[in-house]
Amino acid sequence: MGIDITVFKGSEGGIVQATTHSELPTGNQVLIKITHSGICGTDEHYKQTDMVLGHEGVGIVEQIGEDVKGFKVGDVVGWGYTHKTCGTCDQCLLGQDQYCQNRELYGYHNFHQGSFGSHAIWDASFVFHVPKELDPAFAAPLMCGGATVFNVIETYNIRSTDRVGVVGVGGLGHLAIQFLAKMGASVIVFSLTDSKREQAIGLGATEFYATKEKNKLEIGKPLDHLIVTANSVPNWNLYLDIVKPTGSIYPLTVDFGNFNIPTFPVLINGITIQGTAVANRSVHKKMLEFAARHGVRPMIERFPMTKSGVEEGMAKLREGKMRYRGVLVA
Amino acid sequence: MGIDITVFKGSEGGIVQATTHSELPTGNQVLIKITHSGICGTDEHYKQTDMVLGHEGVGIVEQIGEDVKGFKVGDVVGWGYTHKTCGTCDQCLLGQDQYCQNRELYGYHNFHQGSFGSHAIWDASFVFHVPKELDPAFAAPLMCGGATVFNVIETYNIRSTDRVGVVGVGGLGHLAIQFLAKMGASVIVFSLTDSKREQAIGLGATEFYATKEKNKLEIGKPLDHLIVTANSVPNWNLYLDIVKPTGSIYPLTVDFGNFNIPTFPVLINGITIQGTAVANRSVHKKMLEFAARHGVRPMIERFPMTKSGVEEGMAKLREGKMRYRGVLVA
Repeated sequence: MGIDITVFKGSEGGIVQATTHSELPTGNQVLIKITHSGICGTDEHYKQTDMVLGHEGVGIVEQIGEDVKGFKVGDVVGWGYTHKTCGTCDQCLLGQDQYCQNRELYGYHNFHQGSFGSHAIWDASFVFHVPKELDPAFAAPLMCGGATVFNVIETYNIRSTDRVGVVGVGGLGHLAIQFLAKMGASVIVFSLTDSKREQAIGLGATEFYATKEKNKLEIGKPLDHLIVTANSVPNWNLYLDIVKPTGSIYPLTVDFGNFNIPTFPVLINGITIQGTAVANRSVHKKMLEFAARHGVRPMIERFPMTKSGVEEGMAKLREGKMRYRGVLVA
Repeated sequence: MGIDITVFKGSEGGIVQATTHSELPTGNQVLIKITHSGICGTDEHYKQTDMVLGHEGVGIVEQIGEDVKGFKVGDVVGWGYTHKTCGTCDQCLLGQDQYCQNRELYGYHNFHQGSFGSHAIWDASFVFHVPKELDPAFAAPLMCGGATVFNVIETYNIRSTDRVGVVGVGGLGHLAIQFLAKMGASVIVFSLTDSKREQAIGLGATEFYATKEKNKLEIGKPLDHLIVTANSVPNWNLYLDIVKPTGSIYPLTVDFGNFNIPTFPVLINGITIQGTAVANRSVHKKMLEFAARHGVRPMIERFPMTKSGVEEGMAKLREGKMRYRGVLVA
């Protein structure tokens, strides 16, 4: 006898649909009653498909399968953009879960589970304890947005002595500023206009530059790293001019078009363009611990965990009006 | 009283011009009688400018300045693409000579010195002993072409256990194949047609694939690294499909247009796109030692070190007919 699980899915026409089915956790699975879910720009890409939306979930463990260790009923847990992994490819063997070579085969996307809905059933190996210092509503956006920016810092060895640029103050950018500031780096923020200057400084930015209609940026010492979280393609010439030789650029915004950047300055300055997606489980755990210890907290807008709440939140994000991360609350 | 130095320069009309001036080495400079110079695709970019052409020089030390240590008259030496460096920026302090932040200020290009001519005067700090095992004619193309491909291996930590793709069998590609084979890596070569298959295998390629009109490449285990030496932009979708997650792509061909690659697979697979240019002096020395020890030898075509020899060699390279590196011989 299963539990009734209601989930919000995309559909061919792009209309969010609520469906209910009955299911129970088995083996190493946990059944989680969803309390919160972040709304991420990536959800928009799956709105036309028959898949459950949401991948920034937080909730309470309601039942566990017979093999589960490390979680018990009542635990507050979170989960992110976790496809199934094969466990045998080079990437899995190296703990690079998010880059499993057999993602397509083993479930690249989640058809039945997500975080927009009443419950989710997940493999306990891909579920994380939410530290008690983190309010669940604030923890939700960390599960993808937080992991994505923290992964850049942790995996690509950003140091407290570095000058790190952040392009865009939004769902990802406002978290990147906080993580970087708390680790003691210089945080140089770029936004089109001055409208977010005070907030960026309040979050920990050490310098702020409005870029609209600028042909050249004067920032003094060049950047060691540039994290690009803007929705629209930045003026690469502007930024290539202020990234130091051997510096790195991290384009984080998912885009189905081409990445297009002048070749010559990239070669002649030995620039690294680093693709990166979410985080492996080790980095994800460090991110939650770091956020709890330092009080890293997303700025959120709340919406009800209903069909209309999902639609309203996704529309606000799509229109670029979210300040800065939407959270669905059950 | 100086020595008469004749050099071949570019000019506004793109015509190679021979000019003669008189000069002597001072301080830490060495005067080198040029015996050989490689012809590199990059020379083509400077043919319209009033600069001395050539940056793959080999010759014999003819005079030394009063401060020179480590070189004596009669030494066989080589030099590459060496601008002046400031010695004080972060890159210089870290020994990343080729990425000096003040290249523009301190002489990004060489106006009076190159390697197409009778002599060159260089700072002895940027001149290298040519190991006696290397024939000077074969050593010349190593000074830029060899350094460029060896730098990828040495600086970005390519391992003997890696599967390394090489796109294009030409001036750079045929050297990359040899270096990689001698270090024990698997070398997977891609060329438009089968015409260079036997030569590539002879140079040490472990696998060879003709790519023309292919929509998909089947190579078994994916690549850890992909070194792109082709003159024309490759079909990135073809290659992104066979580079492993967290793998690296090194575009080596200097191009003044945009680098244009699909964003989504780069992000979702955590791919690194690594800009790189020639080598620092430490890596350059290791390259020469490795080439001498393993008999890495460019395949060359010889041209006389005259105005018509320069023009003939550059034309052949421009037309894509060089097999595989042109060398001017005095």
